[in-house]
Amino acid sequence: MQTILIKHVQLNGVPSDIYIEGTSIRYIIPAAEAVPLKADCYLDGQGKAVLPGFVNTHTHAAMTLFRGFADDMTLNAWLEKRIWPNEARMTDEDIYWGAKLACLEMIRSGTTTFFDMYHKPEATALAAKEMGLRAFVSGVCFDRFSPEIAKEVRMETQRRLETWPTFGTHIRFSLGPHAIYTVSGEMLQWINRFAHENDCLIQLHLAETPHEVTNSIRQFGLSPVRYLHRLGVLSPRLLLAHALYVDDEEITLLADNGVKVAHNPASNMKLASGYRFKFTEMRKAGITVGLGTDGCASSNNLDMIEAMKLAALIGKAWRNDPEAVSADEVFHAATTAGAEITGLKKGCIAEGYLADLCLVNLCSTAFVPDFNFVSNLVYAANGSCIDTVICDGKILMVNGKIDGEDVILQQACAIAHRLVQRN
Amino acid sequence: MQTILIKHVQLNGVPSDIYIEGTSIRYIIPAAEAVPLKADCYLDGQGKAVLPGFVNTHTHAAMTLFRGFADDMTLNAWLEKRIWPNEARMTDEDIYWGAKLACLEMIRSGTTTFFDMYHKPEATALAAKEMGLRAFVSGVCFDRFSPEIAKEVRMETQRRLETWPTFGTHIRFSLGPHAIYTVSGEMLQWINRFAHENDCLIQLHLAETPHEVTNSIRQFGLSPVRYLHRLGVLSPRLLLAHALYVDDEEITLLADNGVKVAHNPASNMKLASGYRFKFTEMRKAGITVGLGTDGCASSNNLDMIEAMKLAALIGKAWRNDPEAVSADEVFHAATTAGAEITGLKKGCIAEGYLADLCLVNLCSTAFVPDFNFVSNLVYAANGSCIDTVICDGKILMVNGKIDGEDVILQQACAIAHRLVQRN
Repeated sequence: MQTILIKHVQLNGVPSDIYIEGTSIRYIIPAAEAVPLKADCYLDGQGKAVLPGFVNTHTHAAMTLFRGFADDMTLNAWLEKRIWPNEARMTDEDIYWGAKLACLEMIRSGTTTFFDMYHKPEATALAAKEMGLRAFVSGVCFDRFSPEIAKEVRMETQRRLETWPTFGTHIRFSLGPHAIYTVSGEMLQWINRFAHENDCLIQLHLAETPHEVTNSIRQFGLSPVRYLHRLGVLSPRLLLAHALYVDDEEITLLADNGVKVAHNPASNMKLASGYRFKFTEMRKAGITVGLGTDGCASSNNLDMIEAMKLAALIGKAWRNDPEAVSADEVFHAATTAGAEITGLKKGCIAEGYLADLCLVNLCSTAFVPDFNFVSNLVYAANGSCIDTVICDGKILMVNGKIDGEDVILQQACAIAHRLVQRN
Repeated sequence: MQTILIKHVQLNGVPSDIYIEGTSIRYIIPAAEAVPLKADCYLDGQGKAVLPGFVNTHTHAAMTLFRGFADDMTLNAWLEKRIWPNEARMTDEDIYWGAKLACLEMIRSGTTTFFDMYHKPEATALAAKEMGLRAFVSGVCFDRFSPEIAKEVRMETQRRLETWPTFGTHIRFSLGPHAIYTVSGEMLQWINRFAHENDCLIQLHLAETPHEVTNSIRQFGLSPVRYLHRLGVLSPRLLLAHALYVDDEEITLLADNGVKVAHNPASNMKLASGYRFKFTEMRKAGITVGLGTDGCASSNNLDMIEAMKLAALIGKAWRNDPEAVSADEVFHAATTAGAEITGLKKGCIAEGYLADLCLVNLCSTAFVPDFNFVSNLVYAANGSCIDTVICDGKILMVNGKIDGEDVILQQACAIAHRLVQRN
């Protein structure tokens, strides 16, 4: 098994040696007590701190191709005029290069695991596999309330699951019903059963806008979470993106059924979907709340450190409470809570845990003075502080260098221009 | 005169050569038409874009020493328990090193000019001078409504103005009455006259919290802006920090009197002072609105690119309008509007303007694809994209390198620890 020794890195303020064997952290030894250990690879941790890799619990990786293509627009105009017509023309190759660009950006900013929902998910899965990231990848299910389309979606989902194992164990198949206004109740129930039978997660956009809630009540006679409850699809396998518009009773329903939530502050603010996300109330109720960036067409980057700061700042601002949504809480959301959603033994730097981690360069203004590492990380730093990234025991970036970076930047740029010009 | 030639840099999408002579931009030539020019120094602009240096219109530079020292606290607890007791113990040396750290961080993230209000302003002025930044530096005036203290403040202000010229022409003296609840009306009037007679700007915190407004009405019978109007101190020399709580009539008063405003989204959100800053309304009324970070004890960094994103996102979120507060508007605020507040011929890349500029490295994920440079800068990038900084025709950073960086990081860290342990 491949072994890596990270020497003299700061772990919760203690200089430590971290020994990785295969895909896991085998030993953690305070540097003062360190014994000589042989490893295949040595990394110098001096002037660096170690963290669990971030888990981006909601994104659409290939949408990096649309970065800067349509900003400062209403949600409907943005989707209908700019995004959907171009998405309809995307090939596997487009999605592959968009996802490669996204993976590059995620590695650069310390993300080691992401949850993705997009068309042609095999292209995203291949990109993530090649880049060495862990990912939960789903397609986008739409049946638009048509039994014929639903039948096709069921067949496609079954077929996709069967061919999926080629991507290896750390690219997980998952299910991606788009939203309750594009997917029928019967389809949601079928997806729920399918997920249960095949042990996979479901990613669903829910309660993102007031409009969605109004329509849900009009169409189904119930608000979104209550509607899902009536369908019987609230379960620990369900990960909701956004969940901005939920009341106290709905929070209890989510908590009682073990539903997970992905909070996307940048996207919610930029699209003006809403900003009163009930982070504190959900956490208090026992809901596992992760953080996400959403796709780059709405949030414009995949920086989980920025997402932490935004979550804390907007959480304090709308509550008029500077003590709400602390740096420690958002750090937990971006690491440990995200890891809980994966169901894997990861999300903390401890012996026996998966070696999904990153090293932060402390020799920069953001970390000076060093009164509080987590505060500096969340409030002062940004993704550029990440120096080295390891996922599943493999080194993806070392000292800011990633193999093949220039080719990805060039290819993705060319592909993006070709895509929007293809008419 | 020293000359610099920046070759083949992107200027509004056009590859251009920029020739700097002394402190100003002398020629801008499209690269396609470039003729050979001799210069003392050549900079390669390939793969880079040129921007005006950012103007941080409100900060307290030396407070970088308190970064991460007190977060997630109420404004009063933060000030009374953590900040004020430590500030009272700060020496000139502490402030000098805190300001050096701040200048380092500002240069790294593309700021070439800052407005500062802090104790012992000579120490900040010296740091800024040594680091090569342009700055408008004021002390903090408090008379606490005592005629005795007011007399001392007047004498100190007069003395300070007289010794100021030693800092050179690009470190400007300015006046810093702290707030209407710590400075008497008579003192504000004296400061207004003094500023007029001596041709300098006034920096004042105003209308930062609802509590301040309530107290103003109780104490003076008027809301903050109306109170300043009655005192006769609204003028083009006045720069207000925050101005969160102003109504339509007050916006008209500010506009009619040429008052400038510094918007500090990070600080306002983190301290939960408020988030409904009337950016659009103020701009519409004709007010020059700049952006600021506030000090690092409340905002935690000095990154003007982050400040632009926050201003846009919170501006859209609270208005429930994704079209509000566009990338172009916040970019204008961080550059051109800030430059207008300085009264200097700067803030755009054009012949005859001061050579206060920075180069952005475009070879990173944030700038791929390249559909919209300003969108990528505001929404996808952060301060780490800045590669080279020139202020007043002097190179302060080139290819990410700043002379003496390590010494500043070490000294500032040591000073910060000594400061909070000194009891």
